[in-house]
Amino acid sequence: MSTLGAELTAVVQGGVEIRLPFSPSLTQRNGYLHAGAITAVLDSACGYAALTLAPDDKEVLTVEFKVNLLAPAAGQVFAASVKKTGRTLTVCTPDAFAIRDGGEKVVATMLATLMALPITPPK
Amino acid sequence: MSTLGAELTAVVQGGVEIRLPFSPSLTQRNGYLHAGAITAVLDSACGYAALTLAPDDKEVLTVEFKVNLLAPAAGQVFAASVKKTGRTLTVCTPDAFAIRDGGEKVVATMLATLMALPITPPK
Amino acid sequence: MSTLGAELTAVVQGGVEIRLPFSPSLTQRNGYLHAGAITAVLDSACGYAALTLAPDDKEVLTVEFKVNLLAPAAGQVFAASVKKTGRTLTVCTPDAFAIRDGGEKVVATMLATLMALPITPPK
Amino acid sequence: MSTLGAELTAVVQGGVEIRLPFSPSLTQRNGYLHAGAITAVLDSACGYAALTLAPDDKEVLTVEFKVNLLAPAAGQVFAASVKKTGRTLTVCTPDAFAIRDGGEKVVATMLATLMALPITPPK
Repeated sequence: MSTLGAELTAVVQGGVEIRLPFSPSLTQRNGYLHAGAITAVLDSACGYAALTLAPDDKEVLTVEFKVNLLAPAAGQVFAASVKKTGRTLTVCTPDAFAIRDGGEKVVATMLATLMALPITPPK
Repeated sequence: MSTLGAELTAVVQGGVEIRLPFSPSLTQRNGYLHAGAITAVLDSACGYAALTLAPDDKEVLTVEFKVNLLAPAAGQVFAASVKKTGRTLTVCTPDAFAIRDGGEKVVATMLATLMALPITPPK
Repeated sequence: MSTLGAELTAVVQGGVEIRLPFSPSLTQRNGYLHAGAITAVLDSACGYAALTLAPDDKEVLTVEFKVNLLAPAAGQVFAASVKKTGRTLTVCTPDAFAIRDGGEKVVATMLATLMALPITPPK
Repeated sequence: MSTLGAELTAVVQGGVEIRLPFSPSLTQRNGYLHAGAITAVLDSACGYAALTLAPDDKEVLTVEFKVNLLAPAAGQVFAASVKKTGRTLTVCTPDAFAIRDGGEKVVATMLATLMALPITPPK
């Protein structure tokens, strides 16, 4: 997140919003945001959203995700909401939006599975 | 690719290999490579692999991908091979491997769809 | 659709609803609807939803989909809506719901990519 | 499986093969095998493959899968192999093949996540 320059701008139960300022170092050859950068933020958004519903003694780990890239992405706002949370697995469906001329346009969407695990001390 | 420090180390018809030296700036809180970084390299590997089979006047764009994170990833070698190439769409299945004690262990796998488009001039 | 006994119950621009009566022949060993049956209906729902937005001389073909099975499924209502439609590709996000005690519960969700092609005569 | 007429034709540690005789009731309007039927068999193949590696007191449940449809499918042979098995989750990558003129052609591929659970008595 800090490498990318992303910022957590809203948190509710089961959902978060992240904003990512445009940076030339994150683009591919056409000048658009790289799929890896979009994925990194969508994945982080899911992690934070799942954490809002997880027990205090659990952390969440991404198991897998699918991303559809819908439009050339200058994605600046990312919103994640938890679709289903179970005892072990959480399913999350975040979107990335580009803001242009005051309106929002969805540029990427993810469908992700996360897993709750007992917290392990960070290295 | 250059932001990540990845390097294309082998190219064959329908396949490539990319190596990514370990960098602390690409890790998440447990000290492992971030899913976004792994995805970025797997996605780039698919793009290069698809390009080896595309006509000269076409470029390839990622439509969508799914990534399964299989093990805590200090992924250093990424190998992509094209599974099916059609007139418009290409399907690619790259893997990320960690090298430990001389052996390789798969740490992530992707299933991706790419699309061939007429080349547009870069911005 | 007819093999499964599914019925198209609503159609709007970019969206459809399908209902599937429960049938013992479509269950797996625990008595729940088989993932293949759920997928078949979700996929058909996407196809119909994409068709509502396609030009008259085009048909749509499924390129790929991802399905998350969220709860033991006695899924009876399937609702699909198109998330993004382009000149060639359409992205669709249908859900399957179980109806219990008057309420609805999401039991499966799909993220699918479809492709528009010139109509070919059926065999 | 019995509704579809599929038959388990080979089992090894971490892998299975299933054969599906062609049946007109499983086709869509172009005369090809329906995506739901292909998915049902690929999913069953993963389940059996995962079971070969699961402890005796566990059963496996599909969490999610992604399917890429690669060619018009008269898929008759399905081969699944486990890519990674962990304490809770198993990742499996089955393919569907059509047999034509003595040769095999891959017509669909899946990337699936399964979960091991304590066995519950069937209904």
